[in-house]
Amino acid sequence: MRATLIHAPRDIRLEDLPDPVLRLPGDAVVRVVASCVCGSDLWPYRGVTETAEPHRIGHEFVGVVEEVGAEVTTLRSGDFVIAPFALSDNTCVHCKNGVHTSCAHGAWWGGEDEQGLPIDGGQGEFVRVPMADGTLVATPTRPDDSLIPSLLTLSDVMGTGHHAALAAGAGPGRSVVVVGDGAVGLCGVLAARRLGAERVIAMSRHKDRQEVARAFGATDIVEQRGAEGVAAVHELLGGIGADSVLECVGTGESMQQAIDAARPGGRVGYVGVPAGGAQLPIEQLFSSNISVGGGVAPVRAYLDGLLPDVLSGAIDPGRVFDLELPLSDVAEAYRAMDERRSIKTLLRP
Amino acid sequence: MRATLIHAPRDIRLEDLPDPVLRLPGDAVVRVVASCVCGSDLWPYRGVTETAEPHRIGHEFVGVVEEVGAEVTTLRSGDFVIAPFALSDNTCVHCKNGVHTSCAHGAWWGGEDEQGLPIDGGQGEFVRVPMADGTLVATPTRPDDSLIPSLLTLSDVMGTGHHAALAAGAGPGRSVVVVGDGAVGLCGVLAARRLGAERVIAMSRHKDRQEVARAFGATDIVEQRGAEGVAAVHELLGGIGADSVLECVGTGESMQQAIDAARPGGRVGYVGVPAGGAQLPIEQLFSSNISVGGGVAPVRAYLDGLLPDVLSGAIDPGRVFDLELPLSDVAEAYRAMDERRSIKTLLRP
Repeated sequence: MRATLIHAPRDIRLEDLPDPVLRLPGDAVVRVVASCVCGSDLWPYRGVTETAEPHRIGHEFVGVVEEVGAEVTTLRSGDFVIAPFALSDNTCVHCKNGVHTSCAHGAWWGGEDEQGLPIDGGQGEFVRVPMADGTLVATPTRPDDSLIPSLLTLSDVMGTGHHAALAAGAGPGRSVVVVGDGAVGLCGVLAARRLGAERVIAMSRHKDRQEVARAFGATDIVEQRGAEGVAAVHELLGGIGADSVLECVGTGESMQQAIDAARPGGRVGYVGVPAGGAQLPIEQLFSSNISVGGGVAPVRAYLDGLLPDVLSGAIDPGRVFDLELPLSDVAEAYRAMDERRSIKTLLRP
Repeated sequence: MRATLIHAPRDIRLEDLPDPVLRLPGDAVVRVVASCVCGSDLWPYRGVTETAEPHRIGHEFVGVVEEVGAEVTTLRSGDFVIAPFALSDNTCVHCKNGVHTSCAHGAWWGGEDEQGLPIDGGQGEFVRVPMADGTLVATPTRPDDSLIPSLLTLSDVMGTGHHAALAAGAGPGRSVVVVGDGAVGLCGVLAARRLGAERVIAMSRHKDRQEVARAFGATDIVEQRGAEGVAAVHELLGGIGADSVLECVGTGESMQQAIDAARPGGRVGYVGVPAGGAQLPIEQLFSSNISVGGGVAPVRAYLDGLLPDVLSGAIDPGRVFDLELPLSDVAEAYRAMDERRSIKTLLRP
């Protein structure tokens, strides 16, 4: 099969590799129907984080189960499945607490399982899935092809935006600001509205992203950044900051902007991987009683709740995909996202 | 009248000063019945924070209204009142949001009011109270003298412990750890139990404080600190950290201990003034989905809820006072608290 490796910054290669096979009784092998490039894939792509040696990449995919191991009980060959960006057993105390990303037996796509066996990345044609019962979620029936993009967002960005919205306490009667107009930020807008927020301010300088934000329910757009952006938020909200702020970038500037955009007593939900010197200024947070929560999103915990809304068409997070390419063009997919020509690029093997 | 000034580290003086008088129509003049020394008063006392020039000190007191200005509507001469440690108008948007410490017209004891007039400190015989309607809370009737210590804790430590417990999400079914066995930490134990937590672990090395913690409802005591203390907490809680951790100290060590004691997805409520290099380690918080909230406690917001429980005897937070001195011994009160001979020292003019 063909699968994607990153060799070094800006060096993305699709390579021929052996087809994965079942290695453990809890494994499944999944044929990938769609995968995509994540904003966090751009950190190694841009050299912000190090790539010590070539490795498999990609952690968002949906597909069809080809084969399951002897101990797999919830899946069968032919099932259409969604793969969260983290593997989990769904049974340990942390999973029971809804924090699947801290699973006692957790692992990551492109990493290693507990036995030290390599785990495939998502940007390929097939994937061996350890802990398949815990990790994968099957749809009740084979979904229509038009739903594939939205289902794919449940691998990561929609669940992550939802996590930010929950962490920020978005809901009825609370004003919401979303910092970041990438796919996660846009899904954060959608999630905040879904949770009942009537007023959602999206901070975005890009017309195409503003359009998606509006479609997802943003009531206001603020184009400015930094102190100017914060001032614009205050003006919209009667002179104070927002009840809830979703930080969906992860840089030092965006985190500070998010905190500054919160009112005293407000809540910041952050899901952007801290990769650009992001800090939490304790004196400011303390004096203003601004709380911060969030982190690496346990999207597995949210799949059962979000899936019905995608299947019913109540939400259409797949709109974040504005470019679709064949897997053979995976390097171009990275370029398009790096150059912000695409919000999020879907790949079909 | 006599009132307390701090001149420099370890230089606390009771001085003769003019009796305060009404200066503004919203003022009240209060005769202090009891005041006390706060853990945060020890920061300037110990030289951790600077004392640029001699100034009035003390921000916790209860007393009797002597006189009110023409615009005061909720208080009258003879009322017994509780003074929160921050002044607030109780009408602005931040007060409406329950964040009185961010009041649009807020001020601090020992500071200046909006007109630039000096505000008395609490460790004296009389206090001019600007924004008296917003700041002071009167009891329905003149309380019994035995209730004075508990009522005095509503000025600060009980409300602050309650704030930590709320910020940490303490409640039924949630395990709680309290870092800090000062008056605030002990009140945090009491607050967590009052909110319904069944399991409350107090971290304390001092027998006298452990005894109060037990009386306030602590189910377990952990004497160790740092990594050892965290390991002991994990052992008590089945191998993971606590759902809710109250950080009631404010140093770098205590904050880290609090975060380490939280389980993935847990919540840290912090109310210790960050004065010892406390930081929020974003990578750890992000990867474990530990949220942090709290700050300078809006005790005014909690007075209406806590006062009935004190008056009924349902809670007895006044037990944190283990030393009572006449105001003339205020310097000794500071020494006793600095040397940890007293958990908290009550002063009677």
